[in-house]
Amino acid sequence: MCEANVYLKNKDIEELLLERVDKIIPGNGEVYLENIFGERKIVAARIKELHLVDHRIILERIETN
Amino acid sequence: MCEANVYLKNKDIEELLLERVDKIIPGNGEVYLENIFGERKIVAARIKELHLVDHRIILERIETN
Repeated sequence: MCEANVYLKNKDIEELLLERVDKIIPGNGEVYLENIFGERKIVAARIKELHLVDHRIILERIETN
Repeated sequence: MCEANVYLKNKDIEELLLERVDKIIPGNGEVYLENIFGERKIVAARIKELHLVDHRIILERIETN
């Protein structure tokens, strides 16, 4: 299976947000995530980079003022 | 290997843009793509959705006026 782990980068720290993610839909200052177990998360972030061979996706938190 | 095919959606038509993509970096109205063969493309688009289990990533062309 080719899902990926999604990490949220907040300043210099990366934390694992959701494992084995299948579906990702960005939009309107948020990113929707859904993994192969049906778990869903919506986070205020943008996609920073994808490294699919490493199963690794980095999101970056959107700063709110 | 868990790379994905990247499709570019332009209005209602999806065309295959690059196969077996490993690395994707969005930013500044563009998306940078690099596949496992070292081919690189930069397109004026945004990420619309990712379906990793299906190895399928959809970009949406950014309309220029």
